Amino acid sequence: MPETAILTDVVVRDGLQALKTVVPTQRKIELVRALIAAGCTRLEVASFVNPKLVPTMADADELCGQLPRAAGVQYGGVVLDSRGMDRLLEADLDWGGVVIAASDTFLERNQRCDRAGALARIVEIERMRRDGKTRISGYVSCCFACPYEGPTDFEVVAELCDTLLQLGVDDVYLADTNGHGTPPKTRELLNRVLARVPADRLGCHFHDTHGQAIANLDVALLAGIRAVDAATAGLGGCMFAPGATGNVASEDVLVLLAAHGIDTGIDAQRMAIAGQSLCDELGLLNNSKSGQALLAAYQ
Amino acid sequence: MPETAILTDVVVRDGLQALKTVVPTQRKIELVRALIAAGCTRLEVASFVNPKLVPTMADADELCGQLPRAAGVQYGGVVLDSRGMDRLLEADLDWGGVVIAASDTFLERNQRCDRAGALARIVEIERMRRDGKTRISGYVSCCFACPYEGPTDFEVVAELCDTLLQLGVDDVYLADTNGHGTPPKTRELLNRVLARVPADRLGCHFHDTHGQAIANLDVALLAGIRAVDAATAGLGGCMFAPGATGNVASEDVLVLLAAHGIDTGIDAQRMAIAGQSLCDELGLLNNSKSGQALLAAYQ
Repeated sequence: MPETAILTDVVVRDGLQALKTVVPTQRKIELVRALIAAGCTRLEVASFVNPKLVPTMADADELCGQLPRAAGVQYGGVVLDSRGMDRLLEADLDWGGVVIAASDTFLERNQRCDRAGALARIVEIERMRRDGKTRISGYVSCCFACPYEGPTDFEVVAELCDTLLQLGVDDVYLADTNGHGTPPKTRELLNRVLARVPADRLGCHFHDTHGQAIANLDVALLAGIRAVDAATAGLGGCMFAPGATGNVASEDVLVLLAAHGIDTGIDAQRMAIAGQSLCDELGLLNNSKSGQALLAAYQ
Repeated sequence: MPETAILTDVVVRDGLQALKTVVPTQRKIELVRALIAAGCTRLEVASFVNPKLVPTMADADELCGQLPRAAGVQYGGVVLDSRGMDRLLEADLDWGGVVIAASDTFLERNQRCDRAGALARIVEIERMRRDGKTRISGYVSCCFACPYEGPTDFEVVAELCDTLLQLGVDDVYLADTNGHGTPPKTRELLNRVLARVPADRLGCHFHDTHGQAIANLDVALLAGIRAVDAATAGLGGCMFAPGATGNVASEDVLVLLAAHGIDTGIDAQRMAIAGQSLCDELGLLNNSKSGQALLAAYQ
């Protein structure tokens, strides 16, 4: 098995996006600094979307202007249209995440377009990127189920992954938007998707709503997938997905990766301290079991 | 794959044992009633140990005298010696759990005896049981690691499982006392243990200290194991194992079992309500992700 993983901490974007409170830009920068100090090298930091619809991300441009630019550290953000891509390019981020849902209803409610419309926007975004620099990651949301339509047809997910790669995205992430994945479903989904897409161009963005995310990631790692999104302290959710709670916790993912012989160079305890400090300030529960255990051992 | 599982909810014993507060007997009975109403059929309710050493379990005899005896509902308790077994038989419980550690240091500190001494006590307990009625489950604690000695030799675990079955226990449980298990380690451990012990006589008692327990159980289910200990709301710990936090949450286990096509007949939402009500009263955090999600959906 390979010894490296591409771990992206999404707490600054996905972890804070659905909060009712807007976290001040300076606090976000402080969080970014703490995570880089802990050894994180890939951070999703913003959504370049309509600030009226997503006020927690309204400071995206300002935030990106103040990011500490350290060697080996990469930043990314979510872009849904050419206007967002303009802002991402202006912000000089390393990658953009484009999104399509495996559910038409979810796509309609979340991005206000149909599948053809979403793909057209992705093509437009693709065309705008600076070749060789700005990478594009494609996300297939509702990969297991949709809060409105129920269980997803895995063949649709596989087809969308394939289509995104054909349109030129660099990699595709299976996004379990509302945490409906289980290990058996993950095995079934990956069987379908890996028949069309190579494991080294596939990633996982799992939510831990029902406590199955680490188990699902174990399945993905066994299948050869090495790109994983996770959020410090397991924060996060989706404001358009009722009942969707935290992303899988980065601290817990580190334990799993280490068990698979994969070292990320991240200091889990420093990460846990950064996460707990944020939770304390915002009055949120720390959703990382390992983070809590590391902090208990630290005290 | 078989469609049944032997799910034992251990919240009344393991969930409450390490608490600093002593939960009143009547409150424990109320919890038992709520769990039975939710569909639980196997409950570990007490430890028949020295009440001075474990004050939270001092009411074991009184509690057992008040248990609601419903058809199809079985109760068990922990017994470490013949004195404990006397009390368990007097209490008319359905099974006793005997314990041996894969670590000599842990055994010495936890049970104040060496391996030979612990096995001798188990033989004594075995002899006392009412044939055909009182079942005995053997627990091999520290199955992955010991807080004092570090990583466990899996060959020792396999040998102890085999020995316990030869001594006459009905089944053996791998107990991850301090939550050091990971999916790769679980695969390795089960490879060793299943070479000596059939899957239908093996169970798992996992703690979720580092968020890996559901993933470990997925490995165990794939290996054919069907006996699982879990605690409502993921409560629990071990007062003799520093850093050991909650048992794997029953609500999250139900999601995994259902995903494997195993129906327990338990109403997860009613269980989650019972768990949250207990957490609220005791000022504890609910450690079940699925429990929290079910409650959010319920409100």
